[in-house]
Amino acid sequence: MRIYDIIRKKRDKEILTTEEINFFVDQLVKEEVADYQVSALLMAMFLNDLSESEMVDLTRAMMLSGDLIDLSKVDGVKVDKHSTGGVGDKTTLVLAPLVASCDVAVCKMSGRGLGHTGGTLDKLESIKGFDIKMSSEDFIATVNKSKIAVIGQTKNIAPADKKLYALRDVTATVENIGLIASSIMSKKLACGSDAIVLDVKSGSGAFMKDLASSQKLAEAMIKIGKAMDKKMSAFITDMSQPLGRAVGNSLEVIEAIETLKGNGPSDFKELCIELACKMVEFAREDLTESEVRNLVCQNLENGLALKKLAEMIENQGGDSRVIDDYSLFGKASFVVEVKSEVAGYITEFDCENIGIASMVLGAGRQTKEDAIDYTAGIVLNKKIGDKVIVGESICTLYTNKESLIKDASSIVLNSISITSENTSKPSIILKRL
Amino acid sequence: MRIYDIIRKKRDKEILTTEEINFFVDQLVKEEVADYQVSALLMAMFLNDLSESEMVDLTRAMMLSGDLIDLSKVDGVKVDKHSTGGVGDKTTLVLAPLVASCDVAVCKMSGRGLGHTGGTLDKLESIKGFDIKMSSEDFIATVNKSKIAVIGQTKNIAPADKKLYALRDVTATVENIGLIASSIMSKKLACGSDAIVLDVKSGSGAFMKDLASSQKLAEAMIKIGKAMDKKMSAFITDMSQPLGRAVGNSLEVIEAIETLKGNGPSDFKELCIELACKMVEFAREDLTESEVRNLVCQNLENGLALKKLAEMIENQGGDSRVIDDYSLFGKASFVVEVKSEVAGYITEFDCENIGIASMVLGAGRQTKEDAIDYTAGIVLNKKIGDKVIVGESICTLYTNKESLIKDASSIVLNSISITSENTSKPSIILKRL
Repeated sequence: MRIYDIIRKKRDKEILTTEEINFFVDQLVKEEVADYQVSALLMAMFLNDLSESEMVDLTRAMMLSGDLIDLSKVDGVKVDKHSTGGVGDKTTLVLAPLVASCDVAVCKMSGRGLGHTGGTLDKLESIKGFDIKMSSEDFIATVNKSKIAVIGQTKNIAPADKKLYALRDVTATVENIGLIASSIMSKKLACGSDAIVLDVKSGSGAFMKDLASSQKLAEAMIKIGKAMDKKMSAFITDMSQPLGRAVGNSLEVIEAIETLKGNGPSDFKELCIELACKMVEFAREDLTESEVRNLVCQNLENGLALKKLAEMIENQGGDSRVIDDYSLFGKASFVVEVKSEVAGYITEFDCENIGIASMVLGAGRQTKEDAIDYTAGIVLNKKIGDKVIVGESICTLYTNKESLIKDASSIVLNSISITSENTSKPSIILKRL
Repeated sequence: MRIYDIIRKKRDKEILTTEEINFFVDQLVKEEVADYQVSALLMAMFLNDLSESEMVDLTRAMMLSGDLIDLSKVDGVKVDKHSTGGVGDKTTLVLAPLVASCDVAVCKMSGRGLGHTGGTLDKLESIKGFDIKMSSEDFIATVNKSKIAVIGQTKNIAPADKKLYALRDVTATVENIGLIASSIMSKKLACGSDAIVLDVKSGSGAFMKDLASSQKLAEAMIKIGKAMDKKMSAFITDMSQPLGRAVGNSLEVIEAIETLKGNGPSDFKELCIELACKMVEFAREDLTESEVRNLVCQNLENGLALKKLAEMIENQGGDSRVIDDYSLFGKASFVVEVKSEVAGYITEFDCENIGIASMVLGAGRQTKEDAIDYTAGIVLNKKIGDKVIVGESICTLYTNKESLIKDASSIVLNSISITSENTSKPSIILKRL
């Protein structure tokens, strides 16, 4: 078998066999194939698309290229959630304790933020003392004790995907449904859960800008997961504006805590309940759908989910007093209102740019090496469908660097459309698959 | 400007600007672009095709990436011929002296053979003493004196094409009309002639296997040449069987000499006349079309073209006595008839495999480093449309390695279709453009 022939075959729109894809991934990991051949193949895959069998084969081969997390010692059905990433997406902070409070094991391995989207690990680390590192044994013991742990990934997960992604990133071969789906699923499937609920974001702040492409991505990931005998479900959710109101690490943790106290923004709360119901449904076959919904809503109202968050923070060395005393997060030196220069209705966000403005203020990283200011970020005072008058605050900026305020303000103002005619508030759940 | 954006643009089927193509080629030559980005761009170019403007821009940029041959000191209009390569293609050996005998300057820079096709330089070097190396000054002086010189290319012609071709070769991005046309024309145009006649081969022994793709390639090259203000003409010619009867270096030189003596195979002779007429037409504006044809045919008949060949051989240090004494070429130790096992009509050649059989016998190179046996090769005794009886010789193999005969015989037999129903002899000129 030769890589050359595999490239030619894919170039000519033929479907690669399992053996050919395994050979390619094997050579890739062994560094026995030249980067220039890999990138030619990637461009052929990009332009000719992957078939369903190719997606499944590529995912499996990449998954098997590294370590597999063994969760067999965790009691019960293990359910995972994956979000394709958005602005203000603090869902895991509410969802994980909420699901765990329903007696479902949540073995969560999360990532860091880069660019305009934040990462769960960074948000958790804004809690003093919170440790995202844990040995496999401690991880499993913690989940068996408390039903919850959220840690960073230290194992060698899907190294083939890492190599491929690094090349895709510099050869304009990122934005392809099959390649994205295989990349996400190879890592997700290596993490050992039995069921996966996908939160595929759609809109100006998401990787997928429209419903059709988001749905295609969701369908592709569902197909891959099912082919690997996983229970799969997906929600396409709105990312035409930031989720909730807070963007930035400690600001988002506070919003998540507020949500667990029953005071969260309605869009964010609805999303957490819907995702939690589906996750609990997969794990708790002893309950009917309506029993699941009652349990989830009840645990959000009665404080059990909030209590689970406190338990998790303590288990992982964090100071759980933050739940009742937000001043423990520290506070940004500069808190500035961005005021509307016109009157009208908020009709559109360039949501990616809101994420970029938050990053500019210090909340995110432009490169992997950048340090994060946990207190920096943006809180939206207005969202789509809200009326605004001249001089009214649209959002509040938080930062420790005064010099960045002007830039961030102007990015934010340019990212929000205010028009004389109103539009309806977007639904958070756009589609269920 | 960034290569990444150029790749993305081509990926998305947008047309690259002159500046973008110049930037790419410049970065390529300076080795400031990574091979994996070049190959991703090549695959995007392959799958999305080059527009006419992109072909012209790429050709010009590659041509300008190296030395340009200055023929301004050669008297008169300089006309060049380019063949896309075939089996038994010894056209230059007849055409160059024939055109030169019509008082038209032939400044020919030829190449060596690789794989199933032979090269003019190798054929000439089968003549004892023939030197294909010459300084620029000697080359120009020789052409001004004798109207003819055929040399190898020593200058740094189109280095960007060399780099691109090396990558195309290992990334399955060779067989694309726009890329092929740009590659050929960048080298051809750097050689400084005023008019170019293209001989685009079509059929089983050619790079282009069918008339439609041969025509597309010819049209692409004509467009490029005209955009560079060159006089252009093209012939699509048959390569469904070897040209003439001889395949192999000294065997082909002998056939060329025989043709200049008036005894050549009709297909080969016709091709030489047609190409010569077009070349002379371009250069001799003082003559009408029919005057040109008369002159060409006359010089082939009256021995002036043969005399020109002798003059060229002597100018370049060769022993011109070979023209009258073929034994000076030496002779292969083994001369073996391949006999038909069935009766019928020759209807088809796998012409590429005939070239491979000749290479196996010693006439060609598999890698650039291989040595050539000038006396090795194949002479066809039957061609398409000929009747054959059981035991009759289809062709004669020449080699110095007895051990290779069995392999070569079986390749040859498998390459020739003999059926009970006859087919018509193919025309040598399939189309004029």
